[in-house]
Amino acid sequence: MSRIAIIGSEGRMGHALRQAIADAGHDYAGGIDQGGDVTALAAQCDVLVDFSAPAALQANLDAATAAGVPLVVGTTGLEANHHGAIDAAARGAAILQTGNTSLGVTLLAHLVREAAQRLGDDWDIEIVEMHHRMKVDAPSGTALLLGEAAAAGRGIDLAAHSERGRDGHTGARETGAIGFAALRGGTVAGDHSVILAGDEERITLSHSAENRMIFARGAVKAAQWMIGKPAGRYTMSDVLGL
Amino acid sequence: MSRIAIIGSEGRMGHALRQAIADAGHDYAGGIDQGGDVTALAAQCDVLVDFSAPAALQANLDAATAAGVPLVVGTTGLEANHHGAIDAAARGAAILQTGNTSLGVTLLAHLVREAAQRLGDDWDIEIVEMHHRMKVDAPSGTALLLGEAAAAGRGIDLAAHSERGRDGHTGARETGAIGFAALRGGTVAGDHSVILAGDEERITLSHSAENRMIFARGAVKAAQWMIGKPAGRYTMSDVLGL
Amino acid sequence: MSRIAIIGSEGRMGHALRQAIADAGHDYAGGIDQGGDVTALAAQCDVLVDFSAPAALQANLDAATAAGVPLVVGTTGLEANHHGAIDAAARGAAILQTGNTSLGVTLLAHLVREAAQRLGDDWDIEIVEMHHRMKVDAPSGTALLLGEAAAAGRGIDLAAHSERGRDGHTGARETGAIGFAALRGGTVAGDHSVILAGDEERITLSHSAENRMIFARGAVKAAQWMIGKPAGRYTMSDVLGL
Amino acid sequence: MSRIAIIGSEGRMGHALRQAIADAGHDYAGGIDQGGDVTALAAQCDVLVDFSAPAALQANLDAATAAGVPLVVGTTGLEANHHGAIDAAARGAAILQTGNTSLGVTLLAHLVREAAQRLGDDWDIEIVEMHHRMKVDAPSGTALLLGEAAAAGRGIDLAAHSERGRDGHTGARETGAIGFAALRGGTVAGDHSVILAGDEERITLSHSAENRMIFARGAVKAAQWMIGKPAGRYTMSDVLGL
Repeated sequence: MSRIAIIGSEGRMGHALRQAIADAGHDYAGGIDQGGDVTALAAQCDVLVDFSAPAALQANLDAATAAGVPLVVGTTGLEANHHGAIDAAARGAAILQTGNTSLGVTLLAHLVREAAQRLGDDWDIEIVEMHHRMKVDAPSGTALLLGEAAAAGRGIDLAAHSERGRDGHTGARETGAIGFAALRGGTVAGDHSVILAGDEERITLSHSAENRMIFARGAVKAAQWMIGKPAGRYTMSDVLGL
Repeated sequence: MSRIAIIGSEGRMGHALRQAIADAGHDYAGGIDQGGDVTALAAQCDVLVDFSAPAALQANLDAATAAGVPLVVGTTGLEANHHGAIDAAARGAAILQTGNTSLGVTLLAHLVREAAQRLGDDWDIEIVEMHHRMKVDAPSGTALLLGEAAAAGRGIDLAAHSERGRDGHTGARETGAIGFAALRGGTVAGDHSVILAGDEERITLSHSAENRMIFARGAVKAAQWMIGKPAGRYTMSDVLGL
Repeated sequence: MSRIAIIGSEGRMGHALRQAIADAGHDYAGGIDQGGDVTALAAQCDVLVDFSAPAALQANLDAATAAGVPLVVGTTGLEANHHGAIDAAARGAAILQTGNTSLGVTLLAHLVREAAQRLGDDWDIEIVEMHHRMKVDAPSGTALLLGEAAAAGRGIDLAAHSERGRDGHTGARETGAIGFAALRGGTVAGDHSVILAGDEERITLSHSAENRMIFARGAVKAAQWMIGKPAGRYTMSDVLGL
Repeated sequence: MSRIAIIGSEGRMGHALRQAIADAGHDYAGGIDQGGDVTALAAQCDVLVDFSAPAALQANLDAATAAGVPLVVGTTGLEANHHGAIDAAARGAAILQTGNTSLGVTLLAHLVREAAQRLGDDWDIEIVEMHHRMKVDAPSGTALLLGEAAAAGRGIDLAAHSERGRDGHTGARETGAIGFAALRGGTVAGDHSVILAGDEERITLSHSAENRMIFARGAVKAAQWMIGKPAGRYTMSDVLGL
């Protein structure tokens, strides 16, 4: 039973995290939102989970390092300078940063990388995702994460090989391209499929989220796993032992 | 047992049609390709099937009318003037024109129309298709045909409500929009799904073609059905009694 | 804005109904559970919704008839005698009975019937469903409802044409059979697919429920629709105008 | 360019193999069927591919060993004694035996094993397959192969943990069970899905075969790979380097 604290406790993920902490039988060690005292929070927990905002990151990293507690960063919208700050902090504390805390998506990305590596580029890779009607960007961050996994498996650069938003006279498919398509509608929490299409056969690797609790649950699992780890930068793959 | 003749007998569809005619136990009444004598052909058959080119359409319509034999037109790329010519010829002969001769797709379009009509526009409609890597345009003609069916069910104009090729910052989905996404890869003969996504539930109506023979088989079924029909313009829906 | 009362208000569906009533902007006119006074409840509402137990059905029908308010019966496990009681009560009040209050499933059943009717029995029908790991019976009631729709479309008796639980040496498929398969796992609220498999093409008609709220929402929509209807027995198809 | 010979050359797979050999630019070194002289055949080729019958296996193994040419065994219906004979022959020649020569299925099995190993048994595993209406047994050999991969990943015995042919009052799902369901219909060459269903999320790993040529193509690829290999028993995983 661990004491887990939340940075960004009043947001949608904050509430989900609180429930996930209770569901898993851990102790909720308190939370802060904008303007809260992260140093005090760090002093009273075994691990910090941060789903707040990029602007708060440096203070959170400093508090984790000072208190010697690990930190799980699930905040989205990080830029290169934030990643630099995480690298620096990771010399003094255990920091896990990820764009998707779902264990299922983490495993899927691992399988996609493996499949892309084993199959030659006579297997075409397509990534299709569906999200709720309110989502404002395409493709989803998770689709891009899966695309990066495929590109890494093939040893190519994703940006240079992406085909996005096909419409009109596209010409035949480029060999080695990674295609993206985005569906929007209803209240879909998040469905992703990676299709590897060869001559007369197809492999499809998919993940379907029923709701957002899986992201909270994965973050709590990661937080628990981080307790006692030496300083360094970690990913969700480390949690799954991939 | 009917005598079925093919216009465009040397193309890929021509060969498939010939096999479908034999499979169904009909008589192959001969075929012509570019430069062939369609008047002679019309005189020796019970029904003509045309998978040639728009440029040949007028002569084919004339031959059918003169001989008093029905004509199935599966040629793609028809423009408004071709449709006018078909309407004119249909006053003197039975002419069936369609962009897709598959019975399954014809039925699917009917179901899509029905579903779109029954469900309000709080159900978002998305159409996703996958075809082989050599296909040069997107969305597929069949995807557009399904989109037309959905738009007709809702009583809206498809062109004014299409969302195609989503990429980047798209903003939230427009109420009433019909979305299209195109996947390309491998040797896929043609998969289409129409997704109707409501609040916390989804209906998906799909068709999957294993190969191109289904289009030939549907054309032969339509040809057989057309024999003895009075002058007029027909569609695949008539063949299925929809 | 209508006053909707719940019989079985303390069960899982009772709670969901209460939320659905509020979400739709209706008035919650009160609820009872085991031992509650249904006559008093009927006197203070515009429509009754019953998700209690078969044993309570007769009293609920009596109260609806006496008060002249319509009743929506979503209780499962009804036997022939319960259906007889509903038929009798429907001579004096408007009674809607259904095994599935989802609008999506109701429409899907309609489309399945239509498809089965249009396609000959050279199209094989298979129904596959997935539900959470706690479900104790197979196939699901909704799968059977979809099977009944397919059988009705074909004009055959479902029981005489079902193939369930295939395992071992089954022999080739019977022409005209309707197959059922049940998947169990995780927390899946309910996925159903009806596959119509012809020669080299397939049509798949599917419904996916994200959670149980859709059943509550459909019941509230049905309740609202029932207000002011003349005596008689109704189904969810009537609500959708199918 | 290699010389590939076929044992069982007049069967459906024999014909497909012959085409696959030509498609890949290899030399067809001849074939035999029942009663043919396998010793003479082995003398005139670089590798033997056997899709005949279990009864012919011993003679084929003897011929391969005597001639010092590798042998790919795709024959189905092998019993323990056949496997013993293969083990014995593999001391003197390179023998590859497999129940499925598709590269896609081989990779899928690898991914399934990986996923099953990484995820705890709070993730339920279900395997569903669809095949054409003429298939006489269930589940398919490939479904069982995928089940074995899942069981190996979990370190359990498949037979002791299988749930097959669910129907009627089944009770809740057993923790750690691996479920199988079989769909039959149309002309489906072979679709397989392995579903890993956790709390509120699902991973699905699928393979779809458009036709039987992929099995021939995989066998030819395996045959080519086997040329020059030292004595020993090989699997399709070795061909893919898994």
